[in-house]
Amino acid sequence: MDAVIKVGGSLAESPAMLKTLCNRLSEIAEKHSIVVVPGGGKFADAVREFDQRYALSADAAHRMAILGMDQFGLLLAQIVPNSCATYSLSDAKQLSERKAVPIFLPSRLMFEENPLEASWDVTSDSIAAYVASKLKADKVILVTDVDGIFTSDPKKHPDAKLIPKLSVSELLAFSQRTSVDKFLPKLLLKTRLDCYVVNGAYPERIAAILAGQRTVCTLIKA
Amino acid sequence: MDAVIKVGGSLAESPAMLKTLCNRLSEIAEKHSIVVVPGGGKFADAVREFDQRYALSADAAHRMAILGMDQFGLLLAQIVPNSCATYSLSDAKQLSERKAVPIFLPSRLMFEENPLEASWDVTSDSIAAYVASKLKADKVILVTDVDGIFTSDPKKHPDAKLIPKLSVSELLAFSQRTSVDKFLPKLLLKTRLDCYVVNGAYPERIAAILAGQRTVCTLIKA
Repeated sequence: MDAVIKVGGSLAESPAMLKTLCNRLSEIAEKHSIVVVPGGGKFADAVREFDQRYALSADAAHRMAILGMDQFGLLLAQIVPNSCATYSLSDAKQLSERKAVPIFLPSRLMFEENPLEASWDVTSDSIAAYVASKLKADKVILVTDVDGIFTSDPKKHPDAKLIPKLSVSELLAFSQRTSVDKFLPKLLLKTRLDCYVVNGAYPERIAAILAGQRTVCTLIKA
Repeated sequence: MDAVIKVGGSLAESPAMLKTLCNRLSEIAEKHSIVVVPGGGKFADAVREFDQRYALSADAAHRMAILGMDQFGLLLAQIVPNSCATYSLSDAKQLSERKAVPIFLPSRLMFEENPLEASWDVTSDSIAAYVASKLKADKVILVTDVDGIFTSDPKKHPDAKLIPKLSVSELLAFSQRTSVDKFLPKLLLKTRLDCYVVNGAYPERIAAILAGQRTVCTLIKA
């Protein structure tokens, strides 16, 4: 398996951009074996809102948010050409070998194995890394709406600098919020997976990462 | 099985009211065997929004909305005392016999059997009636945010009259939108189930229906 690619839910805010990205993923799958893991986006946001109003248990909120990933996954399966949504890791593997784009719906695996802590520190980033480790993928690529990890929040600080490469230990030592979830570095440390954070508005960057070329992104080195 | 009770997602807009209702459901379960089926509410609304923006297939939107019912079910399981969320009809039956409140998460049953048409005409109302027929329940009770079915939309027409009782055929002949989904009468005709529409702000009405007493509601007679 070349890569598990997480498509961030925030990308759904721009249908034109998301469709372009999804078309490119289908082309990428002709050269590389990939599995797509959906983000949660608006579907997980609805859960966050109820979590605040109802003070849900961490476990319930976690499960509800994971169902939000299934929902976005079913949406992605509609717009990625030659794709197929599946709950099964082995089906995902077989589909990727046939140059299709498997969209992995994580709820059943996560509910059965329950391998990660139930908290909002664990989002689809960590779940994608977990799926990548289960599939023995070479890398996990987190496709999001920013260019990568910055020295500070680029939406608030225009002078923030993109960090092209950092180690997991450096990410663990980061004090401020980044574009990836808080649990991710712990999981990368354990799974020894290389992780890329890349902007979905430029799908050629994903192709470049898979081709081993330099591009605009952040590599979190295991 | 005395009744399958659908708790409408719109009731989640008032946490205090929903909690009172949920406490009463737990008391009701001590006298009657019930299974709760969740509505979709805000979780299904998020799907509707994306359906409009992405023109999803009817099947994808249907599945995504059903996952929204699972999400609301997990929320209900947090606030109904002595409840347990389950994907299994037989577990739900057993739980109800032990005076617990089973919250039935419908996605797995619906994805496996796919018994109803995939459209927005089929919502949690029809799914609750389907579950009630599978469980051979005596009745299905749709708990919502209005007193029942009116002669016209009570939110728009203050002179609308509550209809205490109507036949399925009369409901089928109704031209305007009602508070229940469009597919429901067809399903009630087939399953020969009595269906009650009742306001969740007055949980004593649900208790009255189960006790065979007269109360403010609409009975759709099979």
